[in-house]
Amino acid sequence: MLDQVNLNKKVDKTLAKKEIKRMEAELSVIQQDIKNKKLPVIILFDGWGAAGKGSMIADLILNFDPRGCRVISNAAATETEKREPLLWRYWKNIPEYGQIAVMDRSWYQDVSTARIEDELDSDVVLRRINSIKIFERQLTDDGYLVIKFFLHISKKEQKQRFDKLDSDKNTEWRVTEQDRRRNRAYEEYYQAFDEMLQYTDTPNAPWHIIPSHDKTTAKLEIYRIVLDSIRKAFARQEVAPALSQGIIMPKTFTLLDMPLLSDIKLDQVMSKEQYDKELKKLQKKLSDLHNKLYRKKVPVVIAYEGWDAAGKGGNIKRVAAALDPRGYEVHPIASPSKTELAHQYLWRFWNRLPKDGHIAIFDRTWYGRVMVERLEGFCSTAAWQRAYREINEFERELYDWGAVILKFWLHIDQDEQLKRFTDRQNTPEKQWKITEEDWRNREKWPQYEQAVNDMLKYTSTDFAPWHIIESQDKKYGRIQALKLIIHAIEERLDEN
Amino acid sequence: MLDQVNLNKKVDKTLAKKEIKRMEAELSVIQQDIKNKKLPVIILFDGWGAAGKGSMIADLILNFDPRGCRVISNAAATETEKREPLLWRYWKNIPEYGQIAVMDRSWYQDVSTARIEDELDSDVVLRRINSIKIFERQLTDDGYLVIKFFLHISKKEQKQRFDKLDSDKNTEWRVTEQDRRRNRAYEEYYQAFDEMLQYTDTPNAPWHIIPSHDKTTAKLEIYRIVLDSIRKAFARQEVAPALSQGIIMPKTFTLLDMPLLSDIKLDQVMSKEQYDKELKKLQKKLSDLHNKLYRKKVPVVIAYEGWDAAGKGGNIKRVAAALDPRGYEVHPIASPSKTELAHQYLWRFWNRLPKDGHIAIFDRTWYGRVMVERLEGFCSTAAWQRAYREINEFERELYDWGAVILKFWLHIDQDEQLKRFTDRQNTPEKQWKITEEDWRNREKWPQYEQAVNDMLKYTSTDFAPWHIIESQDKKYGRIQALKLIIHAIEERLDEN
Repeated sequence: MLDQVNLNKKVDKTLAKKEIKRMEAELSVIQQDIKNKKLPVIILFDGWGAAGKGSMIADLILNFDPRGCRVISNAAATETEKREPLLWRYWKNIPEYGQIAVMDRSWYQDVSTARIEDELDSDVVLRRINSIKIFERQLTDDGYLVIKFFLHISKKEQKQRFDKLDSDKNTEWRVTEQDRRRNRAYEEYYQAFDEMLQYTDTPNAPWHIIPSHDKTTAKLEIYRIVLDSIRKAFARQEVAPALSQGIIMPKTFTLLDMPLLSDIKLDQVMSKEQYDKELKKLQKKLSDLHNKLYRKKVPVVIAYEGWDAAGKGGNIKRVAAALDPRGYEVHPIASPSKTELAHQYLWRFWNRLPKDGHIAIFDRTWYGRVMVERLEGFCSTAAWQRAYREINEFERELYDWGAVILKFWLHIDQDEQLKRFTDRQNTPEKQWKITEEDWRNREKWPQYEQAVNDMLKYTSTDFAPWHIIESQDKKYGRIQALKLIIHAIEERLDEN
Repeated sequence: MLDQVNLNKKVDKTLAKKEIKRMEAELSVIQQDIKNKKLPVIILFDGWGAAGKGSMIADLILNFDPRGCRVISNAAATETEKREPLLWRYWKNIPEYGQIAVMDRSWYQDVSTARIEDELDSDVVLRRINSIKIFERQLTDDGYLVIKFFLHISKKEQKQRFDKLDSDKNTEWRVTEQDRRRNRAYEEYYQAFDEMLQYTDTPNAPWHIIPSHDKTTAKLEIYRIVLDSIRKAFARQEVAPALSQGIIMPKTFTLLDMPLLSDIKLDQVMSKEQYDKELKKLQKKLSDLHNKLYRKKVPVVIAYEGWDAAGKGGNIKRVAAALDPRGYEVHPIASPSKTELAHQYLWRFWNRLPKDGHIAIFDRTWYGRVMVERLEGFCSTAAWQRAYREINEFERELYDWGAVILKFWLHIDQDEQLKRFTDRQNTPEKQWKITEEDWRNREKWPQYEQAVNDMLKYTSTDFAPWHIIESQDKKYGRIQALKLIIHAIEERLDEN
C-alpha cells in the first residue's frame, strides 16, 4: 500500500491554510455533536519516527474541549503491562461514548516494529493481527468510530529530520540509538509496515496513509478525513439500528456438545464426613498448586454463574480459603456503573483480568450480556446475539495469553431455590441476601432456562468449556468445583 | 514499644478456638453494618517477614463478603509508581465509604525497611513520618477507621520459619536472600521498627503490636481488636457530627499576604499586535522549557480557578498549544462522580497527578471544597474549615516531591461577566457553554467573593502561592499566565 503514496504531494499553502482554519472551527463545533450523539471516537496515529505524529496531535487536540478528549501515549509496555494480555492496555484506554481518544502510537507497534525487534515468528504476527482485527471489529460493532492514520516519510527525509533534532542541544535527546537503527534498516521496516497495513485495512476500520513530507499537506488531509469520518458515523447512527442476523459463529470455534439443563438429574449428595475429609485434602492440594502457578506465571480465570441461591458465594469461599490472598482476587459483578455503561460491555472485564501467576474469581460474569441483559432488554437483540461470538473471542484471547479458564454453572431446581429463598427470608442474618429482584427473576425461570441452554450451546468451547455443577447438595457442588479447578490447573502445568 | 511485648504469650487453645468461631460469625454480620453506616475501614498488617501476615489476612477476609472487601498487596514500588509522590499508590487504594481494605504491608515499609536498605538520612525519614501522620489524620478526620497491626516475632523464631519454608521444594522460593539478610541484621531492623512504631502511634490511628509466635493467640487478639475498633467507630458516628472549630492553621505554613479581590484594579489591557508578538515568543520559550522539564524529571501542577466566563478555557488552550501532548494532560474538574463522592475529597486529585517530568493542568481544582462545596452546603462547616489546612498539606506533599505548583485565580468584574454571559447566550456555537447554574452562581457573587478572599488568605503559601490574573482583557490574562509559568519553571530549573 505504501508504494501507491505520492510522497511529493504538496498543496497550495495559502488556500490550504484558509481551509484548515475553517475546518478547525468545524472540529470544535462537531465535538458537541459527538457528545450529544454519544459517538465514541478513536483517532490513531502511527507511522515512521519523526514523521510528525506529535506535532499533528498537538495541533489537532487544540480544537477539542479537553472535557471530551484525551491523548494516550502508547509507549513500550511497562513491567505491569507485560504481565497482562497484549491488548489489555489498549482495551483499558478505549474512550467513553461521546468522547474522543487520540492514540499516539497504538496496538500496531506490536505487529510492526516489534515484529522485527522482538524477532516474532510469522505465526505470532498473524495471531496478533487477528486479535487486532477482532478488537477493532468488536468496537465498531458497538458503534465506535476508529480512524487510523499512518504518517509516511521517506528514508532520506527521516534521516534529515533526525539530523536536525540531533543538532539542537534541546532536542538531541529525542533521537535515540534505536531511531537511528530503524532509519538504517528502513527497507526492512517498510516491508513490515506495508504488510501490517495490508492485513489490517478493513472496511470497518480502514487505514489512511498520509504523505507527511509537507506538514500543511498532511494536516489538510488529516482534518478532512477526521471531519468526513465523523459525519459518516453520524449518518450511520441515523439509520435504523442493526437488524438481528441470528447467531453467527465462525467455524474456527469448536463447540462442545452440552446437555440441556432439564437433562441434569440433580441427585448427587455427599455425607458430612466425606465432605470434610475431601475438602481438607483438596484445599491442601490447591494451595500447593497456587504456589506452582505463581512460579510458572500461569494466570487462572474462574467464572461462576448459576441460579440465585445456588450457592456461588459459599462455593467461592471454599476455593478462596485455599489460596494466598496476595495471589487471587474475587470480583463480584453487580449491575454496571455509569462509567461501565459508557463503554463496550467487555471493557469492565478486561479491566479486571488477573496478572500472570494470579487467580481471578468472578462471581457473575460477562455472561450477563446473554442472560439478564438479553431478558430484561438492556441491549438490542442484535447485540446479545453478537455477544456469543464476542465472548468466545474474548476467552480465546485469554487462552492464547496462557490462562486456564474455568466456567461453572451452579445448578439447582426450582423447589430447592424456593426452600433457600424462604430460609433466607426467615433468618435475620441472611435477610440482606434476598431481594425483591430475586423473586422477580424466579418468575422468569423458563426464560432464563432457555437463555442458559443457549449460552451452554454457543460458548462451550474446547479452550473454555462449561461445567454444570450440581449444587442441590452444596457440599457436593463445592467438592466438584475444587476437583475441576485442580484438574484444569494440573493439566496446564503438565503441558509446561 | 516492642520491648514491652511478651512474645511467649499463649492462650488456652480450646477456649480460644471457640471464641474465634464466635467472632467469625460476628465479623461476617458486622460487615453489613459497615456497609449500611458507610464506614470506610483500613486494616493494615505490617511486621517481620514470616510473622504470619499472609495467613492471618487469608483467614480474616474469609469472614467478609468480597463485595465489600479488598486485599491490597503493597510490594516494592513499580517503575510507574516511582514516578509519583511516595503516598500516591496508597492514596489510590483507600477504600470507598462502607468498604474494607486489608493492606498487606503498607506505607510503613517506606520508613522502616527502606530506611535501612535505601540508607535514608534522618531528615528524609522524619519527613516521611510526618507525611504518613498527615495522611492518616486526613483519613480519620474524614471518618475512616484505620486499624494498624504489627506482627512481632523474635530473631530465632524468624530464622526457624525461614528454615522450614526453605526445606520444602514448594515453598523455598518464598525465602529470598533479602529475607535472610534481614534476619541476620534483626537488631538493626528491630530498632528501625521500634522507632517507626513510637513515632506513628497516634490517638486517631494507634498501633497494635501482636505477639505472633502462636497463631491462635495472635488471631484471637487480632479479631478482638478488629471487632472492638469497628464497634467504637460506630459509636463515634452516633455522636453528633464534629463541631466547627474555626480555621486552624499550623505555624509551619508561611502564609503570604494577599490583596482582597476588591483591591484589584482590573485596568490592564493589551493591544492585538503586542499580544500576537508576545504570545509567539512565550510559547516558543515554554516549549523549550517543556523539553528540559522532561529531561530533568520535574513535574508541574497548574491549577486554574476563576469566575465563570473569566476565560479559563482559552487561557489553558494558549498554554497547552506550547506543549508536547505526550507530556501534559488537562484535567477538567466537573462535579464528582458517585465513586469520587465515596472517597475523601482529595482522592480524585491524587488520582490525577502527573508523572515526573509531566505537566498537569487542572481546569477547576481541589479548591471546590472551600468554594462551591462550602457555599452549597455539600460538606459540613467543620469539613470545609479543615480543608484549608488539608489543602496546604496536600500541596506541600507535591512540593516536597519536587513539583512546581502554580495557582491562578482568573479575575473579572460582575459587569464583564454579564457581558460574556449575554454574548454566549446570543451566539449559537457558544450556547452550550452557558447553563442555568451559571446564572444561579452569579447571584451568589458576594458569597463567592468572600470564599475567594478566605481561600487566598489561608492557602497562599511560600511553596504554592496564588496568582490573581486580571482577565478583563483576556489577551493580557493569557500573557500573564504564560509569563508566570515560565518564570516558575525557570526558577526551579536554576535550582537543580
